[in-house]
Amino acid sequence: MSSTRSPYQLSDLFTARTRTLIPPLFGAVTTAGPELISLEYGLADPTCFPRDDLLAATATVLAEDIESLNYAPTSMDLVAQILARLQAQGIAAERDTLLVGYGSSQILGLLPGLLVEPGDVVLIEGPSFLGAVHQFATAGARLITIPTDADGIDVEALEAMLIELQREGIRPRFVYTIPTFHNPTGATLSLERRKKLVALGAAYGVLIVEDDAYVDLRFEGAPLPSLAALDSEGWVIRVGTFSKILAPGLRVGWAHAHPDIRGRLAMLKAEGSTGSFLTQLVARYCADGRLERHIEALNVHYRRKRDVMLAAIDREFPEDVQVTRPAGGFFVWCKLPPDISATDLLPYAEARGVTFLPGTSCFADGQGDDGIRLAFSYQPAEKIATGITLLGAAMRDLREK
Amino acid sequence: MSSTRSPYQLSDLFTARTRTLIPPLFGAVTTAGPELISLEYGLADPTCFPRDDLLAATATVLAEDIESLNYAPTSMDLVAQILARLQAQGIAAERDTLLVGYGSSQILGLLPGLLVEPGDVVLIEGPSFLGAVHQFATAGARLITIPTDADGIDVEALEAMLIELQREGIRPRFVYTIPTFHNPTGATLSLERRKKLVALGAAYGVLIVEDDAYVDLRFEGAPLPSLAALDSEGWVIRVGTFSKILAPGLRVGWAHAHPDIRGRLAMLKAEGSTGSFLTQLVARYCADGRLERHIEALNVHYRRKRDVMLAAIDREFPEDVQVTRPAGGFFVWCKLPPDISATDLLPYAEARGVTFLPGTSCFADGQGDDGIRLAFSYQPAEKIATGITLLGAAMRDLREK
Repeated sequence: MSSTRSPYQLSDLFTARTRTLIPPLFGAVTTAGPELISLEYGLADPTCFPRDDLLAATATVLAEDIESLNYAPTSMDLVAQILARLQAQGIAAERDTLLVGYGSSQILGLLPGLLVEPGDVVLIEGPSFLGAVHQFATAGARLITIPTDADGIDVEALEAMLIELQREGIRPRFVYTIPTFHNPTGATLSLERRKKLVALGAAYGVLIVEDDAYVDLRFEGAPLPSLAALDSEGWVIRVGTFSKILAPGLRVGWAHAHPDIRGRLAMLKAEGSTGSFLTQLVARYCADGRLERHIEALNVHYRRKRDVMLAAIDREFPEDVQVTRPAGGFFVWCKLPPDISATDLLPYAEARGVTFLPGTSCFADGQGDDGIRLAFSYQPAEKIATGITLLGAAMRDLREK
Repeated sequence: MSSTRSPYQLSDLFTARTRTLIPPLFGAVTTAGPELISLEYGLADPTCFPRDDLLAATATVLAEDIESLNYAPTSMDLVAQILARLQAQGIAAERDTLLVGYGSSQILGLLPGLLVEPGDVVLIEGPSFLGAVHQFATAGARLITIPTDADGIDVEALEAMLIELQREGIRPRFVYTIPTFHNPTGATLSLERRKKLVALGAAYGVLIVEDDAYVDLRFEGAPLPSLAALDSEGWVIRVGTFSKILAPGLRVGWAHAHPDIRGRLAMLKAEGSTGSFLTQLVARYCADGRLERHIEALNVHYRRKRDVMLAAIDREFPEDVQVTRPAGGFFVWCKLPPDISATDLLPYAEARGVTFLPGTSCFADGQGDDGIRLAFSYQPAEKIATGITLLGAAMRDLREK
C-alpha cells in the first residue's frame, strides 16, 4: 500500500535454474474448429469412458471409504491392484518399488530432478513422444536421438553410440523408450531387441525408462515381456498409466523402479501422496475384474477404428505412402514419399478439412518431415474414414500444385 | 537376465541434490489405537463432508462435462470461482496470477525450487506448520525463527532481524506466515501488523508467503484484509486450499502470486495442469453458492466444538495453564506452566487415553516444550470433552509423580 516502490527486484530472488525460464504466455488454447476433423492428438474416445461404473464407484467410496476425503495416503487398494498387474507380467514389483503419481507425465517430469544435471546425456528414440522429451530438455539434458524402425529402437545403433560415448568418458543417464505400440510409430520392440536393450543398460550402467502407456491396448498377438520383467538388476524404470485404459482426465499413473529411485522420486514429488479420494475412486472402479473387462471392450472398439483407418488409407492414399500396421495403441505412422513434405502437406490438409501431427513434432533434432502421425483413438469411425479421404485428396492437391 | 552384475553403481547417476537424500523407510503408518482419543492432528470432521452434494456433482460432471475425463486443462470454471472469491477480498487476482495445484502443500513444496538455493535464509514463525517448513529445510534453507504472540508474528522482531541480516549482506528469500487462525496457535495477525508486514516485504525485497488455509473458518468477528489485498507490488504469495472448507482428500489448493512467480511455479509443476476431472468436480460442487452455504454450516459446527473444548479446558485444566481462544480455525494452543513439559506430559496423557501435538513439533529450533496444540476439528464433541478431562487428569498425574 506504500506509494514508494520497493528498491528490490523480484527476479533476484529466483534460483539459478528458474531465473532463465520463460513462462509461456497465458492464453486460450487454440483448438481445431468443429468443421476440421482432427487426427492430430492421442485423445481417448470419450464414448468409451465408463460413466455409470465411475459414478457407482464414487457412490461406494463416499458411502464406505469416507476417510479417503480426509488427510490420508494414496489408496493402498490401488497400490495392491497395480502390484498384482505388474507381478502377473513377471515383474518383481513390491510396495517399495511402486510410486503412484498424477499421471505418468508427473513421473516422467520428476525424472530429470533425480537424474539430469545440465549437460548430461539422455538418449531418446527418433521419433518419440516429445511431451516427455521436452521435460528432459528443459532440465538441460543433451539429447541424442537413436533411430527406430518397424521393430522399435535400433539396438545396434544404440550400442554403437554407447561405445562412442564411453570412449569420450560420457555415461548417459537413461534411454527413454516406448517399447510397445510406440507413440508415434505404433511399432513394438522385438523380443530379441528387448533382451539386448536390457543387457546394454546393465553393461553400460544406463537406466532404461520404459514408458508402456499403450501396452494393454493390444488388438492381436501375444504380449512380449516388458523390459522390467527382463531386468534383474534394477536398471529399468517402468512407467504406466490409467490414461489409455480408463480416462486421461483422472491423472493417475505409476512407476516401478529400484527402491533407491522410487524413494527419491517420492521425495521430489512436492505434494507427497497422490490424492486419497482420487486413487480410492480408481481402485473401486478397477475392483472385481472390472478394469480387465473394460480393457477387453476397449480393444474391440479401438481395433475396429484402427481397421477403418488402415482400410481407408489403403483406398485413399497414394501407393507410395508407406504405412505401419500397429497391433495396438492409438497411432498409425505414415512414411511420405520424397515429394511430399509433412509441413507442406499440413495447410493443404487443413484446407480440405482434416489435420494431423507432422513428424517434425516427434523428433527433437529436426528430422521427421517425411512422416505423419494419425490418431485413430478419438474420432468416430465415420469421421476417421472421411478424414483419411480428405487427407488423400490433400496429398494429391500438393502433388498437383 | 545376464548373470554378470553390472560394473556400474546406480547411485552415481543421481543428481547432486538427490544423492544425499535418505528416503524414509517404507512402512505402515502407525496411528493411535481406537481406544485413544487423538487431539493431535488437524483432520477435518468427516461428518461434515458433503457426500450427497459431491455425488451429485460427480453425476453432473459425468453427464455434462465428459471431456473433463479426457486430456484437458485445469477446470476454467474452478479458476473463475477462485478468482471471484479472491477479488471479493480485494485481491487483484487474474488468470495469470492464479495457479491451481494438488493441495496448498504442492504449492508450498514447489516454492523452494523457485526461491531457495542451499544456504539461503527463510524466515519462519515460531511456532509454525512444520509440514511446510520441512520442505524449505529439505531444500537446504537456513531457517530463522521469528517469535509470535497473541497478535501473530512479532513484526518488530522481524524488522530487527531484517536489519541485522541486511547488515550482513543477506537478503532472505521469504517469510512464511499463517496470518489467520494460525496453525498451531490459533492467533490472528492484527491489522496494524498486517500493514507493517507487507511494508517490510517491499522495503527489504523479501517475499511474504501468506498461508491462509483457515481464513474462511471464522466463528465470530469481522474478517481482516489479507496480506495480498494490502500488497500493491507483488511481494505477497497467497496460498489457499479447499482442504478445510470442503475435503482435504480431494487435494485441491491454489496460489495467487505475481505472474513471474506464478508462471515459474507452473513450470516447476512437473505434471502440468491439475486434474481436469477433479477440478471440474470441485467447480461443480462449489457452484450456485453451495460452497458458501457449506462454509456457513461448517462454522456453526466447528464453533460449537471449539466452545466444548474451551469450556472443558476451563473446567479440567490446572489454572496456570494459559489457553488461547481462537476466533476460528482448527486449533487451541496451550501454554504450560514451568513444571509441566509437553514431552513429559505425552506418555501420561496416552496412559490416560488421550494424545496431542507437543509444541516441540511446531518449532524448527528446538523450542516449544512449554506448549501443546489441541485440535478440536476431528473428534466429536463428546470425545473432545472426555479427551480434555483425561488430559487434565494427566497433567495432575505428572505433577503428582
